[in-house]
Amino acid sequence: MLGLPESSARRRRRGAGNRDRCTGEKAKDNQMPLVDLDRFDFLYANRVKGMKTAATRDLMATLSRPGIISLAGGFPDTRAFGEEAFRDLSSAIARDSAQALQYGPTGGLEGIKDVIAEVMRAEGTPADQDNVFITTGAQQALDLVAKVFLDEGDAILCEGPTYAGALNAFAAYRPRIAHVPMDRAGIIPSAARETLKRAKKQGLHVKFIYTVPNFQNPGGVTLAKERRRELLDLAREFDLVIVEDNPYGMLRFEGEPLPTLAALEIEEHGDVDRVVYLGTFSKIFAPGVRLGWVHAQPGILHKINVGKQGADLCSSNLSQIMITSYFQNGDWKGYVRRLNAIYKERRDAMLAALAEFMPKDVYWTHPEGGLFVWATLPSYLDATAMLPRAIAKNVAYVPGEGFYAGGEHKNNMRLNFSFVESEKIRRGIEVLADVIRERVELRTDLERGQTGRKLSATNPLVQRATAGRDG
Amino acid sequence: MLGLPESSARRRRRGAGNRDRCTGEKAKDNQMPLVDLDRFDFLYANRVKGMKTAATRDLMATLSRPGIISLAGGFPDTRAFGEEAFRDLSSAIARDSAQALQYGPTGGLEGIKDVIAEVMRAEGTPADQDNVFITTGAQQALDLVAKVFLDEGDAILCEGPTYAGALNAFAAYRPRIAHVPMDRAGIIPSAARETLKRAKKQGLHVKFIYTVPNFQNPGGVTLAKERRRELLDLAREFDLVIVEDNPYGMLRFEGEPLPTLAALEIEEHGDVDRVVYLGTFSKIFAPGVRLGWVHAQPGILHKINVGKQGADLCSSNLSQIMITSYFQNGDWKGYVRRLNAIYKERRDAMLAALAEFMPKDVYWTHPEGGLFVWATLPSYLDATAMLPRAIAKNVAYVPGEGFYAGGEHKNNMRLNFSFVESEKIRRGIEVLADVIRERVELRTDLERGQTGRKLSATNPLVQRATAGRDG
Repeated sequence: MLGLPESSARRRRRGAGNRDRCTGEKAKDNQMPLVDLDRFDFLYANRVKGMKTAATRDLMATLSRPGIISLAGGFPDTRAFGEEAFRDLSSAIARDSAQALQYGPTGGLEGIKDVIAEVMRAEGTPADQDNVFITTGAQQALDLVAKVFLDEGDAILCEGPTYAGALNAFAAYRPRIAHVPMDRAGIIPSAARETLKRAKKQGLHVKFIYTVPNFQNPGGVTLAKERRRELLDLAREFDLVIVEDNPYGMLRFEGEPLPTLAALEIEEHGDVDRVVYLGTFSKIFAPGVRLGWVHAQPGILHKINVGKQGADLCSSNLSQIMITSYFQNGDWKGYVRRLNAIYKERRDAMLAALAEFMPKDVYWTHPEGGLFVWATLPSYLDATAMLPRAIAKNVAYVPGEGFYAGGEHKNNMRLNFSFVESEKIRRGIEVLADVIRERVELRTDLERGQTGRKLSATNPLVQRATAGRDG
Repeated sequence: MLGLPESSARRRRRGAGNRDRCTGEKAKDNQMPLVDLDRFDFLYANRVKGMKTAATRDLMATLSRPGIISLAGGFPDTRAFGEEAFRDLSSAIARDSAQALQYGPTGGLEGIKDVIAEVMRAEGTPADQDNVFITTGAQQALDLVAKVFLDEGDAILCEGPTYAGALNAFAAYRPRIAHVPMDRAGIIPSAARETLKRAKKQGLHVKFIYTVPNFQNPGGVTLAKERRRELLDLAREFDLVIVEDNPYGMLRFEGEPLPTLAALEIEEHGDVDRVVYLGTFSKIFAPGVRLGWVHAQPGILHKINVGKQGADLCSSNLSQIMITSYFQNGDWKGYVRRLNAIYKERRDAMLAALAEFMPKDVYWTHPEGGLFVWATLPSYLDATAMLPRAIAKNVAYVPGEGFYAGGEHKNNMRLNFSFVESEKIRRGIEVLADVIRERVELRTDLERGQTGRKLSATNPLVQRATAGRDG
């Protein structure tokens, strides 16, 4: 932490998008020996002493329990692809099996780089395939970016809240993380500037600003176009890099697409410069192939190449050839449209259920795309403490604190709508509303004995949100 | 470096096994801007300033040139698997496509853990599937082990020479690396003890000993059984971990299999304790699926789990399900036998050609398995400097210096026999012998003018080998 305020202005109807970590199927993670009982503790590196497993991971044994309604994961609906399509696809690549089974170049095969340039152009970014570098999911891209830029004690700016997996990746390199407040137009550039000035005064070297501009994970907002330009200005002014993580850009259900920061930079500057753009096939094709990419200028890609050689040599040729074949010969845009239709229906079901069942003083975002809704409970409620009760009633979510480096903001929860059918979503939200109401009423009962202390005065988030800039 | 001698006793007829890094298909890596011309140099982490791309990688543009005989790569022959087998396999898993395309648990699916325990048992290690953790190739396992154990300035012991990709993975965490000499029975335990004592005296914390016990990469020796026990004793005595990297164990063409260090530890200790065993499907199935594993005790796996979450969330479900299906329903042992028959024939062709064509004063190992032969030239020859000449004559190899952290031992070369047909191997060695003879003769011509300076006196490796213990 920089010791800076890490507030986050929140309002009803902010959009939420999210990418999530993997599932676990077994309870073993929970049964691992405690760190301080580990006889090899004296052998471990300091970095892993400070790293924790993700909240979602600790839930995983539970999430695979029959009957549970999981709003916790960040899973696309891979059933939508279909067995027949899978069979056709894998049959089509059999003639390339010798290459599919072989090692490949660290930066990826040429074919998939063409595909990626096409995907990025379809979203409006004039990408150059020579600036594309393949990674083992966008998660590896986050790890490699941190590996390339962060010495211990360097600082970075993240949105508050931010993608928990990014915090996990960055933590291994022990940076100081400052969360910059957002409102429903995304990260607030003036707040980012204040943070950067303060960091400079403290003698910290800020290496990059990390942002998920579309259907942000987990805050759910989409960064306004003007602010995208302001972030680029900030990067030039403070001589740092922007890490633009855009897994959900093409999962838009409504409204007009906005230009990526990469596109704006190319427009303003003539070429890619300070924007390190991260993309993934996890949301527009499938996470099971573990393929993402970095689009950046060659000097940065050269460093990333060195980092990836040590990390895993190269990404799967099998996955790359499969994706290349599908995107060149299949109707990938039609598939994305199909996914969006499914997700939109489920998002609508979730928003309707929230409006119908949630007690007052609970707020939630209205994502224009992506996979998630972000809910804010009264500040005196602790979503982490409440989770076992929800799970006992067969509903799971992700508590908000994992999305802050310091674990603040316990009164938030992330709700996924992409994986579970609408009817289950509705039932899940109904149960969750009951659990919350139970807690609210418990608190009200306790307060009855007290003299006129107003709850709202103890809820800084709501206060702050009211005072917050609204983009 | 510890400042310790990093000598390596070498002798004719040492066995060589090797795993190798990926290919690149384009020259771009070579055209990347130089580090000191990079305008973002002030933003990069110190760790990447010291990391270099691998020699094999810099060769890659060349290696894909038509007509070139590449003895440089570390490629298994994936053509052996066959299109029909691939088609059947991918068709068989179509019914699981929704899971294959989905995120999976960080530590891997249960099915593949069963398969791995079976594979390890087939090699004589009484593995427990609960102690198995899936990684994105064994390369990621090396990265995660380093991430979990190494703080900057910690020390590790590696064989001298050692797998270049391991040096790459470790370098990111900035340890001090001491190479321990080997002879044809592998790493010399008494030398390791000396190194450990000296490190202790210097106040260094040695975290682990890294060894490739079978058909070592690239030294080619197989660690004698008694020495395996001695290494385990050393680990207990100096309270550190053994990282046993065993990609080639099942690629044995002759001689009796030896117990893994993991097996010996379980036998002596009753359970896995200090041995962190790394395995991979790259050599017994295919590298294109990017799957390896760690077998270790739960406390260590817990730390590795935390490290992997940040690194890439989870390995490919698609690859895991494909492998599980093949190993459960296909004749994987038959496939390994088929690979071994192919590789043995090619190894024999290479050894025969070396004996037929190489000038005297060139020595090479006699691997009992694996993928590689390691050749030692007269000490005044520089295999790195000689490479362009060889490539001009359409033959490539990997110069030896990349297998030492300090880049010593320039008079070695690694020769791969697994990927190229026997007839090409023979031609390649013939050409290489000509290139070496050219250099030797040039040197002899130069020496004619000098007074009786004996060449052998300037060849410390041969001297050392003569004095070296021979296991």
